[in-house]
Amino acid sequence: MNFRLDPRLLADTTFIGELPLSRLLLMNDARFPWLILVPRIAGARELTDLDATDQASLLAELVQVGRVLEDLLHPVKLNIAALGNTVAQLHVHVIARFSNDAAWPRPVWGCGEPVPYAAEALGLRLGALRSALRGVMDRAR
Amino acid sequence: MNFRLDPRLLADTTFIGELPLSRLLLMNDARFPWLILVPRIAGARELTDLDATDQASLLAELVQVGRVLEDLLHPVKLNIAALGNTVAQLHVHVIARFSNDAAWPRPVWGCGEPVPYAAEALGLRLGALRSALRGVMDRAR
Repeated sequence: MNFRLDPRLLADTTFIGELPLSRLLLMNDARFPWLILVPRIAGARELTDLDATDQASLLAELVQVGRVLEDLLHPVKLNIAALGNTVAQLHVHVIARFSNDAAWPRPVWGCGEPVPYAAEALGLRLGALRSALRGVMDRAR
Repeated sequence: MNFRLDPRLLADTTFIGELPLSRLLLMNDARFPWLILVPRIAGARELTDLDATDQASLLAELVQVGRVLEDLLHPVKLNIAALGNTVAQLHVHVIARFSNDAAWPRPVWGCGEPVPYAAEALGLRLGALRSALRGVMDRAR
């Protein structure tokens, strides 16, 4: 069984790049700097489905991505979460939160309707993230 | 600076035990089997604040606690999340979710009012969790 991105995640996100274990996606919602990591492990649903090596890789990638968001955006808080009640495929949200964002202090899920990025804003965000993660993404090739 | 549990977490939970890195708490809400791990690291707010050793310990404890919930309760899904928008002290939620629970498929945060455990149900839940985690908690002493 080959890894294939869940169709709902595919529809709701823009591809950023491949990390050593995970595909890195940007949620199509300009209200929040909202990344999603999807380990490229076919059939994985839970963190507990990964072996210890892949768990450690995922943790390292979550920390790297979290630090990139901190360095680029200086959020008040990171929200890191593996929920998956709607999309079963294992995926982990890493969201930069601000005290004036649309959902603060509540979680972002279920908060109104997503606001699509304007083309220029999307290009800037993808460029900044890819540049900051270049070293990590290069190692995935 | 010594570790001290955040007063809000103290008020909202019941103590289960000490894992090697984290204090393990049960949320006082009988609607959801809802555990919280609080690494005993004074001043930690983000996963990115922990050093690599403590990050790995926290990950191992999350997986152990998640597997205990899976083995005891057979949930449809685990929800694992570090949010902290309201309580800044680093804490990670591990929640067993069911398709007939009070919030499904939405996240549990902000879903109505907590329902306190009846004394007997609380005793049973604590006993089952402490028994299942005895091996891990023993190593924390």
